[in-house]
Amino acid sequence: MAAAGLEGVVAATTRLSEVDGERGELVIGGYPVGELAARATFEETTWLLWHGDLPGVEELDRFRAALAVQRELPQPIVALLGECARAGVGSMDALRIAAGALSLAPSGDDPSAIVARFPTIVAAYARLLRGEQPIPPRRDLDHAANYLYMLSGQDPDGERVRGLETYLNTVVDHGLNASTFTARVIVSTGSDLVSAVAGAVGALKGPLHGGAPGPALDMVFEIGDRSRAESILRKKIESGERLMGFGHRVYKVRDPRADVLAAAAERMYTRAGDMSLYTLARGVEQTALRLLEEYKPGRRLQTNVEFYTALLLHGLGLEVSLFTPTFAVSRVSGWIAHALEQRRANRIIRPQSEYDGPRNRRWLSLSARRTPA
Amino acid sequence: MAAAGLEGVVAATTRLSEVDGERGELVIGGYPVGELAARATFEETTWLLWHGDLPGVEELDRFRAALAVQRELPQPIVALLGECARAGVGSMDALRIAAGALSLAPSGDDPSAIVARFPTIVAAYARLLRGEQPIPPRRDLDHAANYLYMLSGQDPDGERVRGLETYLNTVVDHGLNASTFTARVIVSTGSDLVSAVAGAVGALKGPLHGGAPGPALDMVFEIGDRSRAESILRKKIESGERLMGFGHRVYKVRDPRADVLAAAAERMYTRAGDMSLYTLARGVEQTALRLLEEYKPGRRLQTNVEFYTALLLHGLGLEVSLFTPTFAVSRVSGWIAHALEQRRANRIIRPQSEYDGPRNRRWLSLSARRTPA
Repeated sequence: MAAAGLEGVVAATTRLSEVDGERGELVIGGYPVGELAARATFEETTWLLWHGDLPGVEELDRFRAALAVQRELPQPIVALLGECARAGVGSMDALRIAAGALSLAPSGDDPSAIVARFPTIVAAYARLLRGEQPIPPRRDLDHAANYLYMLSGQDPDGERVRGLETYLNTVVDHGLNASTFTARVIVSTGSDLVSAVAGAVGALKGPLHGGAPGPALDMVFEIGDRSRAESILRKKIESGERLMGFGHRVYKVRDPRADVLAAAAERMYTRAGDMSLYTLARGVEQTALRLLEEYKPGRRLQTNVEFYTALLLHGLGLEVSLFTPTFAVSRVSGWIAHALEQRRANRIIRPQSEYDGPRNRRWLSLSARRTPA
Repeated sequence: MAAAGLEGVVAATTRLSEVDGERGELVIGGYPVGELAARATFEETTWLLWHGDLPGVEELDRFRAALAVQRELPQPIVALLGECARAGVGSMDALRIAAGALSLAPSGDDPSAIVARFPTIVAAYARLLRGEQPIPPRRDLDHAANYLYMLSGQDPDGERVRGLETYLNTVVDHGLNASTFTARVIVSTGSDLVSAVAGAVGALKGPLHGGAPGPALDMVFEIGDRSRAESILRKKIESGERLMGFGHRVYKVRDPRADVLAAAAERMYTRAGDMSLYTLARGVEQTALRLLEEYKPGRRLQTNVEFYTALLLHGLGLEVSLFTPTFAVSRVSGWIAHALEQRRANRIIRPQSEYDGPRNRRWLSLSARRTPA
């Protein structure tokens, strides 16, 4: 039997991203994440993953326009989201349902159409859940700006757009995580991109993958004041509670994404003129790292991407229920990049199982079977 | 890098089924497929996979009743299938869309509710595509009988029900194929069964997995008369065409499912009183095996499950577009069994990728980038 969870088993060769957990490095399309994330638009990052290089002026213009004109959702998908809201379906289920229904839309399986429509789905559902009408997308805004616009109905300022783009660029791809692997397995059978992306949303939905940026933020709010951090965190650790936002299966040093997101959050809170939450979070982080080293020496539990994701997305005005769907708004570009890469050198992904059940049982008619007491 | 497609890599331990490709044996829940398939009802086989033993009298009664009362589809899902039909979406896409939308239904994520509703979705969509109204399910029929009833509106005779059940039991589980693996990866993140099953349908949809029973049947019809088999098949092989219905990645001897399905098809065509298609297919098979050994000696290309699937399902009156969805009507019980098994000893399935792209690229502003000519 291979390692549980296929840990350490190489299942694909990729040019998309490299995760070096020991050195705490993440390369996206050849760029260290810190070099790329705060500078690129999301259109540029998506193009980089899909084509291997950053776009030139004309390529970028064409790609921005292609995304802009494909943002609208066909009416049956809006109606479906309405049904989801009436049934009280969770945000990730609604995204999975609507993403899977993109086969109904014109050019449904086109990569740029899928990426263009993801924010429209997420924003429409957030508003429907609040009992508000979805705001139609605008064609004159870039991808990230239009997402913020569809959520609030207001023109977002440049700093907020930059904050969101930094986030989207940071989490767009991360090796063979479970959702990306799901997408590759599905297209490896010769299936379509909508199937791959819908399957990937289903995987991302799981709490072991989509993560817990919500709970990380809850913890900061619960602490509320830096002076209470040590006593509350000690109590949590001593009662065996996991500190949300710390530790990662792959990274044994600081998650390189945490620094990028912390810097983006700092810029945004500075600009907004209220640093209290940011300062509190920094203090909670320092205390948590000190206590984790004290209680679990050698475990190398470091701040992960979730901690500053929570801080940044909260600062952007996103409610907690939007955190994982917004992750998907970014990662869908990575899923599609992997699906296209899998197709270029495809072999169906079909591992083996090891049987540990009985053999050679003989049929017993119903009346001859023992019914358990 | 592990073997391409993870071939030979053990990714799970299972008590559900064992595929021995060298010996041509398939064990389902401890029973050789030939021992189980023609005797069990589909309810019994599903229970066997989910609980490890065939049900007793009372267990079976309760399970039949539970499936029977959960067959109806909620109105929004019927409406969604109507939209799919209007858009001309393929049968497997429609199944994936509707299966994914089961989160909208009462007890949507309940294992028996999912299995109960799959035939209702498939049958409703087949009728909608023909411009007919879906036929509501009946509670007084067993699972397989009710599926045939919803397709035709007629009470199916016992021989046809037995033929369909034999098929459903034969293909219900088959180790870690790509769709089953997809389901396990998705639930390994802590996600729900609807997500797992929707992802699995997306994988099964791919032509490298869901297979080609349609083309196998087309070939038999194209030959039309046994006297033409040799010349037509020689021409196909010499022009490099693959003979549909022969060869399998795992089985190097005769696929054990082929015999079970051939026997079921023979019974059904005998009963119907017209053996001509069955006899023709048998003749085509013998000629094909002889020619494959002549042209590709040592390749051990044997009749696979698709050849007799086509013959059996055609004999049941199913159109070709229903072949893969009917496969899913069976396999969904296996997907759920694997998902439940994965949950009982879970570790998130997250293999590794190997990076072969550039590193340490430096950001270039848009104007500084070379635009390709």
